[in-house]
Amino acid sequence: MLASTPDPPYVAVIFTSERTAHDDVGYQQMAARMDELAAQQSGYLGVESARGADGFGITVSYWVDEPSARAWKRVAGHIEAQRLGRDEWYRRYSVRVAVVGRAYTDDPTT
Amino acid sequence: MLASTPDPPYVAVIFTSERTAHDDVGYQQMAARMDELAAQQSGYLGVESARGADGFGITVSYWVDEPSARAWKRVAGHIEAQRLGRDEWYRRYSVRVAVVGRAYTDDPTT
Repeated sequence: MLASTPDPPYVAVIFTSERTAHDDVGYQQMAARMDELAAQQSGYLGVESARGADGFGITVSYWVDEPSARAWKRVAGHIEAQRLGRDEWYRRYSVRVAVVGRAYTDDPTT
Repeated sequence: MLASTPDPPYVAVIFTSERTAHDDVGYQQMAARMDELAAQQSGYLGVESARGADGFGITVSYWVDEPSARAWKRVAGHIEAQRLGRDEWYRRYSVRVAVVGRAYTDDPTT
């Protein structure tokens, strides 16, 4: 579940959100579909995602550069998901686009 | 639960981890203590954290600059938590230090 990313620099898009109680099945399906769709985009490096029982979640997607991250925001299927997110699924959310300059891992498997 | 951060630029430390099943009570206590201790550090801006039922979690702490983020890594109480994390609580983890350049939010309360 940890994303395997190359040496920095690369771009991280940090998406934090509070879920409404609305339409959990539809939300789960859309989230899975967006993970698949993101993975098909040029410049995609990986994604990491966690959501607690309290409905607060963080998804970080990794991209080779900022144009790749911006392009993903404008993919048609993703635009529809963003609209549903705003209207139905998220009470509130933040998006932060950041350049990763340093990274280290403690992963016995790598 | 969304962190309220100033206009960019600022620093995000993205900590992603897979928990072991070991010592959940001790872990929760230490996590709460570290949140408190971090909040007392110079340059601290906020923290966001989520962990799913599968044990995968993401914590993002925000800092005014990179020296503040580095200083937090070396605070004595935090060093002990890091050691316990490596030895007991995390199967594996990654740390990424990133500079946030753009941010936006959809938060009706602000």
